[in-house]
Amino acid sequence: MTQRSVINASVSPKGSLETLSQREVQQLSEAGSGSIYTLFRQCALAILNTGAHVDNAKTILEAYKDFEIRIHQQDRGVRLELLNAPADAFVDGEMIASTREMLFSALRDIVYTENELGSQRIDLDSSQGITDYVFHLLRNARTLRPGLEPKMVVCWGGHSISSEEYQYTKKVGHELGLRSLDICTGCGPGVMKGPMKGATISHAKQRITTGRYLGLTEPGIIAAEAPNPIVNELVIMPDIEKRLEAFVRVGHGIIIFPGGAGTAEEFLYLLGILMHPENRDLPFPVILTGPRSAEAYLQQLHAFVGATLGEEAHKHYQIIIDNPAQVAREMAQGLKAVKQFRRERNDAFHFNWLLKIDEGFQHPFDPTHANMSSLKLHRNQPPHELAANLRRAFSGIVAGNVKDKGIRLIEEHGPYEIHGDAEVMQPLDKLLQAFVAQHRMKLPGGAAYEPCYRVVS
Amino acid sequence: MTQRSVINASVSPKGSLETLSQREVQQLSEAGSGSIYTLFRQCALAILNTGAHVDNAKTILEAYKDFEIRIHQQDRGVRLELLNAPADAFVDGEMIASTREMLFSALRDIVYTENELGSQRIDLDSSQGITDYVFHLLRNARTLRPGLEPKMVVCWGGHSISSEEYQYTKKVGHELGLRSLDICTGCGPGVMKGPMKGATISHAKQRITTGRYLGLTEPGIIAAEAPNPIVNELVIMPDIEKRLEAFVRVGHGIIIFPGGAGTAEEFLYLLGILMHPENRDLPFPVILTGPRSAEAYLQQLHAFVGATLGEEAHKHYQIIIDNPAQVAREMAQGLKAVKQFRRERNDAFHFNWLLKIDEGFQHPFDPTHANMSSLKLHRNQPPHELAANLRRAFSGIVAGNVKDKGIRLIEEHGPYEIHGDAEVMQPLDKLLQAFVAQHRMKLPGGAAYEPCYRVVS
Amino acid sequence: MTQRSVINASVSPKGSLETLSQREVQQLSEAGSGSIYTLFRQCALAILNTGAHVDNAKTILEAYKDFEIRIHQQDRGVRLELLNAPADAFVDGEMIASTREMLFSALRDIVYTENELGSQRIDLDSSQGITDYVFHLLRNARTLRPGLEPKMVVCWGGHSISSEEYQYTKKVGHELGLRSLDICTGCGPGVMKGPMKGATISHAKQRITTGRYLGLTEPGIIAAEAPNPIVNELVIMPDIEKRLEAFVRVGHGIIIFPGGAGTAEEFLYLLGILMHPENRDLPFPVILTGPRSAEAYLQQLHAFVGATLGEEAHKHYQIIIDNPAQVAREMAQGLKAVKQFRRERNDAFHFNWLLKIDEGFQHPFDPTHANMSSLKLHRNQPPHELAANLRRAFSGIVAGNVKDKGIRLIEEHGPYEIHGDAEVMQPLDKLLQAFVAQHRMKLPGGAAYEPCYRVVS
Amino acid sequence: MTQRSVINASVSPKGSLETLSQREVQQLSEAGSGSIYTLFRQCALAILNTGAHVDNAKTILEAYKDFEIRIHQQDRGVRLELLNAPADAFVDGEMIASTREMLFSALRDIVYTENELGSQRIDLDSSQGITDYVFHLLRNARTLRPGLEPKMVVCWGGHSISSEEYQYTKKVGHELGLRSLDICTGCGPGVMKGPMKGATISHAKQRITTGRYLGLTEPGIIAAEAPNPIVNELVIMPDIEKRLEAFVRVGHGIIIFPGGAGTAEEFLYLLGILMHPENRDLPFPVILTGPRSAEAYLQQLHAFVGATLGEEAHKHYQIIIDNPAQVAREMAQGLKAVKQFRRERNDAFHFNWLLKIDEGFQHPFDPTHANMSSLKLHRNQPPHELAANLRRAFSGIVAGNVKDKGIRLIEEHGPYEIHGDAEVMQPLDKLLQAFVAQHRMKLPGGAAYEPCYRVVS
Repeated sequence: MTQRSVINASVSPKGSLETLSQREVQQLSEAGSGSIYTLFRQCALAILNTGAHVDNAKTILEAYKDFEIRIHQQDRGVRLELLNAPADAFVDGEMIASTREMLFSALRDIVYTENELGSQRIDLDSSQGITDYVFHLLRNARTLRPGLEPKMVVCWGGHSISSEEYQYTKKVGHELGLRSLDICTGCGPGVMKGPMKGATISHAKQRITTGRYLGLTEPGIIAAEAPNPIVNELVIMPDIEKRLEAFVRVGHGIIIFPGGAGTAEEFLYLLGILMHPENRDLPFPVILTGPRSAEAYLQQLHAFVGATLGEEAHKHYQIIIDNPAQVAREMAQGLKAVKQFRRERNDAFHFNWLLKIDEGFQHPFDPTHANMSSLKLHRNQPPHELAANLRRAFSGIVAGNVKDKGIRLIEEHGPYEIHGDAEVMQPLDKLLQAFVAQHRMKLPGGAAYEPCYRVVS
Repeated sequence: MTQRSVINASVSPKGSLETLSQREVQQLSEAGSGSIYTLFRQCALAILNTGAHVDNAKTILEAYKDFEIRIHQQDRGVRLELLNAPADAFVDGEMIASTREMLFSALRDIVYTENELGSQRIDLDSSQGITDYVFHLLRNARTLRPGLEPKMVVCWGGHSISSEEYQYTKKVGHELGLRSLDICTGCGPGVMKGPMKGATISHAKQRITTGRYLGLTEPGIIAAEAPNPIVNELVIMPDIEKRLEAFVRVGHGIIIFPGGAGTAEEFLYLLGILMHPENRDLPFPVILTGPRSAEAYLQQLHAFVGATLGEEAHKHYQIIIDNPAQVAREMAQGLKAVKQFRRERNDAFHFNWLLKIDEGFQHPFDPTHANMSSLKLHRNQPPHELAANLRRAFSGIVAGNVKDKGIRLIEEHGPYEIHGDAEVMQPLDKLLQAFVAQHRMKLPGGAAYEPCYRVVS
Repeated sequence: MTQRSVINASVSPKGSLETLSQREVQQLSEAGSGSIYTLFRQCALAILNTGAHVDNAKTILEAYKDFEIRIHQQDRGVRLELLNAPADAFVDGEMIASTREMLFSALRDIVYTENELGSQRIDLDSSQGITDYVFHLLRNARTLRPGLEPKMVVCWGGHSISSEEYQYTKKVGHELGLRSLDICTGCGPGVMKGPMKGATISHAKQRITTGRYLGLTEPGIIAAEAPNPIVNELVIMPDIEKRLEAFVRVGHGIIIFPGGAGTAEEFLYLLGILMHPENRDLPFPVILTGPRSAEAYLQQLHAFVGATLGEEAHKHYQIIIDNPAQVAREMAQGLKAVKQFRRERNDAFHFNWLLKIDEGFQHPFDPTHANMSSLKLHRNQPPHELAANLRRAFSGIVAGNVKDKGIRLIEEHGPYEIHGDAEVMQPLDKLLQAFVAQHRMKLPGGAAYEPCYRVVS
Repeated sequence: MTQRSVINASVSPKGSLETLSQREVQQLSEAGSGSIYTLFRQCALAILNTGAHVDNAKTILEAYKDFEIRIHQQDRGVRLELLNAPADAFVDGEMIASTREMLFSALRDIVYTENELGSQRIDLDSSQGITDYVFHLLRNARTLRPGLEPKMVVCWGGHSISSEEYQYTKKVGHELGLRSLDICTGCGPGVMKGPMKGATISHAKQRITTGRYLGLTEPGIIAAEAPNPIVNELVIMPDIEKRLEAFVRVGHGIIIFPGGAGTAEEFLYLLGILMHPENRDLPFPVILTGPRSAEAYLQQLHAFVGATLGEEAHKHYQIIIDNPAQVAREMAQGLKAVKQFRRERNDAFHFNWLLKIDEGFQHPFDPTHANMSSLKLHRNQPPHELAANLRRAFSGIVAGNVKDKGIRLIEEHGPYEIHGDAEVMQPLDKLLQAFVAQHRMKLPGGAAYEPCYRVVS
């Protein structure tokens, strides 16, 4: 990656409601490895890198080694001073408003996460404690708005997709927006952007000025997948598991578009939860969809699910091919059931308290070589537990593909080894090979994709 | 055109501020040729026809012969009842909000135009009177907003353009929106839609919720070029000349994209005004632009202007090829000069009072065969007068191509004959042939284009 | 009246949406008797005179002989330049925002009234034409808002009342505001201010930021009774009859507090209309109320109505003594019936089209000595016609008390003579004497009240 | 106190943005002494008791022994169920919006305070830690708004004042509001209400819809002095010292009206801080004011300050008698210096970080008989330390007068004894006697005031 153009700038807090105490400003100014300054610098760099066609966190961090961000307290609130910042987020020398907002969102989340961790009320060892933690982070980010109808549709799918698939996600977003639905994604490019862009246009047609484009990310992901500037609510959760829990507790329904390992991780996470016996009666609309050209891919994913988790898993979602209006209509219909259910059970519209999430899905998975090779990937366990382990396998592959830490581990120790029963390993290997063949693993542009894993059955 | 699906609906006045007196409701209910009901029905049909890929007013009117619209006074205001309406403007049975707004805008403009014409204060025989009339119509439509900076950019160009050209107009709109500029177009498809769509996205990025997408049309045009639903201010001027005057008095700068006869009409109208000696010192940024593929077309138009109106005409605009950011930067720069000038001369930001428009540009031109054949198309007159006559020629061709009345005239009497000096006729003929060759005259899809004119030199 | 302190100022159009054409600016600049400049200057002076404890239009005009107001067109809209303006409306040199708004409201109404009069569509000779005219003026002032529930409560009563009565009107306004009702008055001091002030406080308690405080006035009244600054919608109707019609068509219910001749005029106008046979079924809540100390006064007014218009008239209102909460509850109850009725009959909430107003109540009454002495004040006519004539008698007395023209007539020709049957004249004489004794005719402060009339039976 | 009328009601969360976790809902449902339910119930009762003319917390609690409040989680957010609630806060069975808002504010503050106390980041033993704590509580209540100019004027003074003094505070509030200033008070009746009421009217005149009426209270005070319903931001600080710190860090200037022991406590707290050597250069406008009739009182307070803290103390404030406009002008002037200073020193407009508050003013003072009798009240200490001790003496007297716990202590052990040097004790005794004579100690209505203290010199 060649050195890109940089800019120095000072960003006023206009429009931001964040205030910091002097102690918080000081904390943010203390550099050093492991410091919150380092975390904030990394997120800020990713946010400023919007629009860049690179999905390698390590590369980005190395490309802007001189980048610095300083926090100043001043009369009208916090001011950020940027040195050697990527020039992309500026128009004629002025920062794009959404980028400015996101910088302050990152500031908010990083400071709050740090503060909250020091609190005795947070018990990260219990399932309830983790859920409370997720709730507090989202509440502090003003994501939880009482009084709104269930209409937040999560869109999952790849950041590296074909132009045809991208156009399709825009059309689905457009149809969702026409029905006054909001969009939540992982906030990067590709599927994470298309539906938001489509909904922006249809919200304009419906004269909706309060449309929500919620981006949920975490420090490891954001560095690789810069938030797209349509996002008007950005929340940085502390790790991948909190982020996944945020998706399923805040979203009222989920649409899954074609994607790679990250999408498979999300899909398995979701199925593992929905298949939990306690969630049997809980309505949660899930739709797999894509253009005609993606039909084979979707059928393959569908077959993989059947082969590993059993036919039972198929009941939890429907597949709709090449019909954006139908997708939106089915989702709108499904949301009515969600609304009805929450009303009857007195559950909040803004947070899905009744959804049971097993602890296995809540604790962070550290994708070391040892952890990856000891995953239990056999059918001799309840399907939702196998789903949890498959989820971890895909999570490790995502890390090895795009995250700074994962890439460094692979550089050092070679590819992960994934072991398991043939019944599970063969469908898995087939699916992963298809992802590689379809260029769904990484953004094209670099060399041919070099797998970060080896499937051993 | 096959019979299309229709719907019956009742539209509540939600969000609309329009109120009608009982007498006005009654007027609108009186059918009959020449009645304002007929006019309203026609405009309403066009508005409901949004998204249709047809640009033939006659065809549309004939396709929905059973369409009716009834006005009811009720407790919360006016209610519209629609019978056999085009189903396009509805999502799952509910009318799109922008369409609903536009119906009430049409109601407002038609009622007001009717009322205003009965007023003694309007003297349509004088230049000042016509300008006052335009002002009153725009004021009543709440288009004139004191206090706003000059930032309304008019985008002219064809409704029938290539996909590449369309993408280019979106990019230019995106760059204009990033610089907080607003968009005004003729409100149909093609160039009239692209810049608005691009600006919608970039306004979202800049967190601008008050972006203006102003559509200026007139009853003859709207029927052929249904307003695109991004338009959030629709004004129906009574005829083509009032509409053109509205463009140049409300717009602060103009961008011209590739187009056909309509675009040429607009461009000549503009040059004729800017070349008037009294407008010598008045800043008015004009930019011709298009993608690389349109360069030849733009150069041809440029050459036609030089050949007919002289080199002097070239000073009034610049040409920028394939550089959306540069277009937006130059426009933003030009608007600063406009602001400075209006401030110094105490002219309103919201209405360009100081612009001199010759009466020749203000009086309606009726494109009968007699009028068309007697146009003075020779260089033996001041350039701004020649521009006025060339404008009329193109206006007639537009009518013959897409307007109900024009099409009927051509069907009856055959193509118009256009006479003039070879110096003018040869460049004109060449330009028109290019328009035909490039499919800029009409939306493709029907039979090969059959010219509605003959150039005779 | 001693010379009061004056100020020169230039008022920017901030917040005002009014725009003027060059012709309109020019019209407003042409001084001369009978010109609209003269009218505007007089209204502006009255508006600026807010808070002054004088109710004599002639005195005010003479106190500020040097006052001038100039209109300038400029970049951001209209600017007003004031010379030798009353200093009351300024705080530390800056004009109070409500005053500034009112100046632009006056500008709007005066320009529109002038324009509208030139229109052929207005037929001031017919009852329907006058009603249309009233509708157009109110619509142009944006007073008619579709979609709002019936909740506009008109409060009538004196501008010169005791402190106890004033406190009572505040309490009633407070109770109305607690029930989310809006207030409409004649916009001067006393009863015209108290309810608005009370409702301002209770609207704040109910977190209502869209409370309406509508002031309806006319040029003759405004000069004597400066609008109070709580008014957030000011409309200047062209004469007293249009203003009265506006009250009963825009208001959904009416509360009558103690007052003098003006209040009696309003009350008789209202009874005359409600007693019209065509209005028999139309719900229109009317409440007479006051503190305990005003009970005798209200009973006297009640007796006068019975004695002159008959017991039938008593059915159209109720009397509530010293119970603000009860007044508000009864009014809220009455408004429900109004809402129900309009919904059933498809009449607009924002304009009472179904109310029949006899032409006798619509045509201006010119209080010359001849007209006053020839009023038909006998019981040998339908009660609603007697009400119309009694209304005229009180209207003349108001003019003689406070209006510039009326005062000059009395100065020249002596008191009016009012003739009629003893049956009518005796109760009238008694009532007028009570008004004088209770200081309800004029603001105290000057010499003893000198009646401008003589009752002759 | 006789049993008052009660009502059962369920309050929907309309307009409130608060959301609670399930754990928080559960905490609030656990009754028991010392529980947060007990605290919330007590505050809720006080809020519902608005408008009552009683200032005895014990009496109120006893009058509504059956009052209960239950918290339910439901679809649209939190819902409160009230049993046997005071009927005052309801209009025709519906709760006044401001009361509803305040209930949810209390919920927010009580839950957050509880959560925050569990946090390791809060070090209540250090001065900086206490200040951070105050900051966090105010930030969570959204009281700290970056970007606003310094315009928050704190008004201190008695809850039990004469009608003339009350009218005067309204006039001062009116003049402050005319200058676009906001009001902050202790949020009870009397001086805590008058300025807000006056400013509500003048903000309406200035068309300011964002006027802030900030009430800062604490659980012990709120029970005795129910918040007035004009307050549109209510914050319940955990104790009296945090509340005082909030006043001086959030307020930009302070006006002191006549009052009793509570006002003296506030005034001495303020002087003690402003006299600290580190605050020498910090601008902080303070004005003592009252109507003509209060002049003697203000002079006595002034003399007391001189006699105990020395002439130096006089430099920190000015006295203005009977001139509301002058008070507002001086305050506006003083705020300009505050703005200038904060800008130069890069201190936040929304929180006065640079103000040095000695720990002695930050730690809670527990008014036991032992603590009261051992206060160091002699001149042999720096004036700001004497001020701190005098502040404690007055704080104890307030508790003995109106707070539940204080009243019970006095009932049990008899009056407090206050010891000290004659130089301090004599002026103190004189001042306290004046407060009693002027009925400034308690709301009138009960028996003659029985002092809760004895001054011993």
